[in-house]
Amino acid sequence: MNKYNDIEVIINNKRYTLCGYESEEYLQKIATYINSKHNEFKNKDAYKFLDADLKNIMVQINIADDFHKTKEKVKEIEADNEAKSNEIFDLKHELVTTQTKLEMAHKDIENLKAEINEAQKKIVRLETELMEARKLR
Amino acid sequence: MNKYNDIEVIINNKRYTLCGYESEEYLQKIATYINSKHNEFKNKDAYKFLDADLKNIMVQINIADDFHKTKEKVKEIEADNEAKSNEIFDLKHELVTTQTKLEMAHKDIENLKAEINEAQKKIVRLETELMEARKLR
Repeated sequence: MNKYNDIEVIINNKRYTLCGYESEEYLQKIATYINSKHNEFKNKDAYKFLDADLKNIMVQINIADDFHKTKEKVKEIEADNEAKSNEIFDLKHELVTTQTKLEMAHKDIENLKAEINEAQKKIVRLETELMEARKLR
Repeated sequence: MNKYNDIEVIINNKRYTLCGYESEEYLQKIATYINSKHNEFKNKDAYKFLDADLKNIMVQINIADDFHKTKEKVKEIEADNEAKSNEIFDLKHELVTTQTKLEMAHKDIENLKAEINEAQKKIVRLETELMEARKLR
């Protein structure tokens, strides 16, 4: 289990101390990401004259938008994943069926070869008998 | 393409008008989600005495955390997806190999059957010849 940390981060030019089990690396990544959102808005003229509260809400909406779009992506990839699982199931089934047919074909080949072997022995026997019968004539 | 909308939402008990191409349904979903974060914090005693700015930053961190955890999930599912794609590739390859072997086995069976047919004809011919040779004795 991770240990409990007090981590200092700077968000929108203010210093905050965050407490929790997340790693410093993770929390700094979160802070950098949130700052990128604040900076993105700062560069827009329309944003300059909004009050602090509205700016914060805009950032919240923007981050929530990223979150929901990513959630949608999760759904899509999960659907793709399920389709792939089904394809794997079907392929495994088809493979087992084909392998079973192959085993049966190999058994048929064995039996046919035995049958040929018997027929060839019979031919040799008949040819010998025929040769002897003709000699006796 | 979606049309440009002006949508009214209520976030943290304040009314905002959002402008953009997103649907009303989507923006209301985003607002509901952000409100659930504000409400979650409101119910915590430690949160009551924080100033508005810090409360907003806490909500931003919380939403950004959801976003990053979901992004990690995307990576995991994508890795799983890639592993599945590789498995499908391998299974398809094995299936084609097995199908080719099966086709070859079926050709072998055809050839062996033809060979048996020839051998049986030869046996019939030899038996006839033998019978005639014995009659002549």
